[in-house]
Amino acid sequence: MHPVQDHDPERDLLVTRVFNVPRRLIWRAWTEPELLMKWFTPAPWQMVDCSIDLRPGGALRWTMRSPQGEESTHEACYLEVVASERLVWTDALGAGFRPSLQPFIAVSVRLDDDNGATRQTCHVLHKGAATRQAHLDKGFEQGWGACLDQLADVVRGIGT
Amino acid sequence: MHPVQDHDPERDLLVTRVFNVPRRLIWRAWTEPELLMKWFTPAPWQMVDCSIDLRPGGALRWTMRSPQGEESTHEACYLEVVASERLVWTDALGAGFRPSLQPFIAVSVRLDDDNGATRQTCHVLHKGAATRQAHLDKGFEQGWGACLDQLADVVRGIGT
Repeated sequence: MHPVQDHDPERDLLVTRVFNVPRRLIWRAWTEPELLMKWFTPAPWQMVDCSIDLRPGGALRWTMRSPQGEESTHEACYLEVVASERLVWTDALGAGFRPSLQPFIAVSVRLDDDNGATRQTCHVLHKGAATRQAHLDKGFEQGWGACLDQLADVVRGIGT
Repeated sequence: MHPVQDHDPERDLLVTRVFNVPRRLIWRAWTEPELLMKWFTPAPWQMVDCSIDLRPGGALRWTMRSPQGEESTHEACYLEVVASERLVWTDALGAGFRPSLQPFIAVSVRLDDDNGATRQTCHVLHKGAATRQAHLDKGFEQGWGACLDQLADVVRGIGT
């Protein structure tokens, strides 16, 4: 049993979605900047810049822009990279595993075959129950739901 | 170039020491609880408990006790595990890559052959210059120096 598969309902949030495409397309959508930019930021915000160094210790950096032109830039660090199977990253670390200024979550994305489709299971880990609740209060379910709708559109667009 | 090998003198601390034993003994001293307990806590404090789950996402947990009986328990998470070559861990994450309550450092330990001996290079990464300075102010050099003296004694004791 992999450690991040142990779900702790007091501190974690769990989001499962089935996409009607093979795992490798979901993997591409998570790991190619030009695809990630199309879905990883909930509209009406847009991702306007993205770089991916896809290896443990490598950084994911992205910049989001609001309709009013406000921008915010974020950095995370990849922890586990197993193509078409598992991607783990955290914003508690940045490039080269450096501790970050504003740690918040770690995310494990697992992809499983599901009758020709792909079941994606995202575990979102927090340091404690209060942080988990704060994440819910600032719109976790709506934000992730909107992003995953966008992800479904993106993978439909790239075909099989 | 591995990301954690990029030394940032503004935010990192670097400790290099040559031990007159092969790399595999230094590796054992870092990864076997009964050996780590003998050196990883500077005297007169003692490590009284230790558990190691040696894989990315696995936890290192240890308890230290003062001469007066005060105890403190700590948890860290392994990030990279390459036997006899490289060990990376951080207290910014705990078991299963969960963000921690009190993030502070990430540590990369690199072991290189050096004319039959082993050169150990420890990079200690902080989120910023102020945290690095706070680490120095609370006795980083003295504490690590004392531990590495103890490590030298331990590896002499287990022979080749």
